[in-house]
Amino acid sequence: MVQPEGTTDPRALIANLAAAVGARHAQTDEDILAPLLVDERRRYHGEALAVVSPADTAEVATVVRLCATAGIAVVPQGGNTGLCGGATPLGEAPSVILSLRRMREVRRIDRLGRTITVGAGATVEEVAGAAAAAGLLFPLSFGAEGTAQIGGALSTNAGGTNVLRYGGARALTLGLEVVLADGTVARLGRGLRKDNTGYDLKHLFVGSEGTLGVICEATLALHPLPRQRATAMATVTGAAEGLELLVRLQEAGDGRVSACEWLSPTTRRLACEGPAGARDPFGGGPESLVLVELTSSRAGDDLRRLLEEILAGSLEAGVIGDATVADGVAAAERLWRVREAPPEAEKHAGGSIKHDIAVMPDRMPEFLERAGSAVGAVLGGVRINAFGHLGDGNIHFNLLAPPGEAPHVLFDCEERLTESVFDVAESLGGSFSAEHGIGRRWRHELARRGQPAALDLMRRLKATLDPDGILNPGKVL
Amino acid sequence: MVQPEGTTDPRALIANLAAAVGARHAQTDEDILAPLLVDERRRYHGEALAVVSPADTAEVATVVRLCATAGIAVVPQGGNTGLCGGATPLGEAPSVILSLRRMREVRRIDRLGRTITVGAGATVEEVAGAAAAAGLLFPLSFGAEGTAQIGGALSTNAGGTNVLRYGGARALTLGLEVVLADGTVARLGRGLRKDNTGYDLKHLFVGSEGTLGVICEATLALHPLPRQRATAMATVTGAAEGLELLVRLQEAGDGRVSACEWLSPTTRRLACEGPAGARDPFGGGPESLVLVELTSSRAGDDLRRLLEEILAGSLEAGVIGDATVADGVAAAERLWRVREAPPEAEKHAGGSIKHDIAVMPDRMPEFLERAGSAVGAVLGGVRINAFGHLGDGNIHFNLLAPPGEAPHVLFDCEERLTESVFDVAESLGGSFSAEHGIGRRWRHELARRGQPAALDLMRRLKATLDPDGILNPGKVL
Repeated sequence: MVQPEGTTDPRALIANLAAAVGARHAQTDEDILAPLLVDERRRYHGEALAVVSPADTAEVATVVRLCATAGIAVVPQGGNTGLCGGATPLGEAPSVILSLRRMREVRRIDRLGRTITVGAGATVEEVAGAAAAAGLLFPLSFGAEGTAQIGGALSTNAGGTNVLRYGGARALTLGLEVVLADGTVARLGRGLRKDNTGYDLKHLFVGSEGTLGVICEATLALHPLPRQRATAMATVTGAAEGLELLVRLQEAGDGRVSACEWLSPTTRRLACEGPAGARDPFGGGPESLVLVELTSSRAGDDLRRLLEEILAGSLEAGVIGDATVADGVAAAERLWRVREAPPEAEKHAGGSIKHDIAVMPDRMPEFLERAGSAVGAVLGGVRINAFGHLGDGNIHFNLLAPPGEAPHVLFDCEERLTESVFDVAESLGGSFSAEHGIGRRWRHELARRGQPAALDLMRRLKATLDPDGILNPGKVL
Repeated sequence: MVQPEGTTDPRALIANLAAAVGARHAQTDEDILAPLLVDERRRYHGEALAVVSPADTAEVATVVRLCATAGIAVVPQGGNTGLCGGATPLGEAPSVILSLRRMREVRRIDRLGRTITVGAGATVEEVAGAAAAAGLLFPLSFGAEGTAQIGGALSTNAGGTNVLRYGGARALTLGLEVVLADGTVARLGRGLRKDNTGYDLKHLFVGSEGTLGVICEATLALHPLPRQRATAMATVTGAAEGLELLVRLQEAGDGRVSACEWLSPTTRRLACEGPAGARDPFGGGPESLVLVELTSSRAGDDLRRLLEEILAGSLEAGVIGDATVADGVAAAERLWRVREAPPEAEKHAGGSIKHDIAVMPDRMPEFLERAGSAVGAVLGGVRINAFGHLGDGNIHFNLLAPPGEAPHVLFDCEERLTESVFDVAESLGGSFSAEHGIGRRWRHELARRGQPAALDLMRRLKATLDPDGILNPGKVL
């Protein structure tokens, strides 16, 4: 039976939610809830009264309004693949999980303007698939793309391997439909490339992890679909040489550089010598590896020749030590397999402490050197699995237990290790969370390391947009 | 003599401002003030107690704090080239003009990361010049770039002719130093390409026209400097064919299309047959013109061949009627002269009513047709000078008096003409101010046409960030 809206009785709230979205879309069953109460990395376990799956924006608005009235927190959840616990409800606050999974409709694809409008529940892969079916590219791409939903990807401003050419989630966002903390529906942007009618509010919601509003629908920028692709791997003595290669690629490749990924020597060994089982294209060696890719919407094979030319010039100039250009799709996939192996290698190594660091590219070599010394001083022999998006100045500076040591040796000094890495990044004007976000994981770090005036402004915005703290409490701020 | 800070006596405030920035940088002289009290289009005339020119961010903070304490409005002013009166103080509220002109220092250029950090007072041209001296491109480019200052260009989210390839001011902004309404200095972003540590606040200040804070310094994205450029003009029957040409260019040109500008038949005649004096490359004709440009950071002349190839294919497919590819820099400049003539032609025609419309590109033909009928119904014979950034879906739909009629015939029905254009744009999901902003000019239109929930959110943000309404009152909201 539907209860009065103002009720604070959880059972009454659940009855009202069931009435709003249909009983089978308001679940309280423990088996259904269990996987939604723990984050991808199994660091956080929360509790929730129910998981509610609205069919459309109007139902989201009703759900938020009902919860707000009842004083129950709303925790928006997409594919639940985040790395910082941003979608996991707290244990202490009574919460309802708001699942966007039913809202996966593709509403419109505009071929001329190259945009797609989709519901927040579509996976990143589904968005890319719909775009590809229309002959266009949705470039956002990262490991969890088959599960991660677009609403979550926007809420965390997801990055990945294509940011270098196309920008991250934020750069692809042309319009949003958002439900605010009081259940109001705001339409922010109309999918136009240019629109200077007032404050640009959509950027407040991209990357704010569901703490300011719930993204229900998005209009996203598409690009011409690549018709050719040239992939290569090169050996370099360090990150500085990798960056020098990137400059050469950018100048000659002319905006067509779609990836520039770096693997440190330790990462190379972990990827290719251990159970992660990637194949070292150079048969092993002490150098770093750089994976580079050019893509073009123009049919032909000129990109491969261009890439060979750039690499030959770089070899001659001593920027790289050796290089191999992939001959065909399978060979390119083998090179990418090397880049994708490190996270798996970390699991085999008994787990890792992950750090997602960005610095200005010209400071990357200094960061790697100083952070390496700093963690070595905390835990002698600690292994540094440093790899990632060199072209964006974004390196995953992950730590593994010293060879032969048990994982707890590492985790016992986790806090000191992390602080030492973050201190170095901060001293170089860098970021301690380049693409993973804040969630629960780095709240205290943001509070400690954020610029006070910027933090104060964030808190004032949160208080203005969500005065009762209904939306995803305990995250970000 | 320095006065107590809390004073509300204007003379005392001016003494305090003079003490803060130095007497010669706090001017009350009428001759100095006069040109700062009127906007570029001479639509608005305001008043101000003084113009104050701080030397650095700390002095800006002091100025804002002193004015806030005295209850005197602060009107930030850059090059004063805006088209909507956003930098002109009101007549009715006592104001101080805050000029950023002394803060023009280039602080840092990062070649590897391709960024530049500059004071807000540098002109757009100076920023581009400093970037070029380091072998890099700052792509923001528009008519007033020699006078417009970068702080103003960011505050109005300026567009121009390079948005198609590089994005507008917003897309180029990697970090800001902003003075808030209470004089606090906030550092938003650190110039990093990726940084997910909390809400992205810099986008609140880009495009908010100085109503939320004063931009003092910016870190901006740079691009590789073009080493070759291919420019062409083609005739098309209408905007739809122009867009079809653009799709072909995008696919074959592969991210290297830097401009796709359109001129309606009337604009073509105004540009080439009147005193504006551009030369019609086809000797005149009834079609529209499209100016296209490809740029590449790679030396060589392959772009020109590529452009010729695309145009030949488009000619064969009947997308374009005729085409000419510029042979050398001087010829390219002659083609650009055609594109740049329309604003001058408007002055010769006795003035114009300017509309800066954006719609999704696939709706552009319908917009042009319907808006054309609508204005014709208001004023028979009205001339439509429609031209602009077709590739961005952004057209300047400007109106001139009917041939032989005096300008007042046009201006007498200005409001009805504008409303009819905006109504059509709105009905097609478009924007009534794509790149010019709101300022004083379109405040009432934003209040009328903005989505209520979005407007409410803007007002709440304004009230949160500037509770006493000190910053550029009477603009935007």
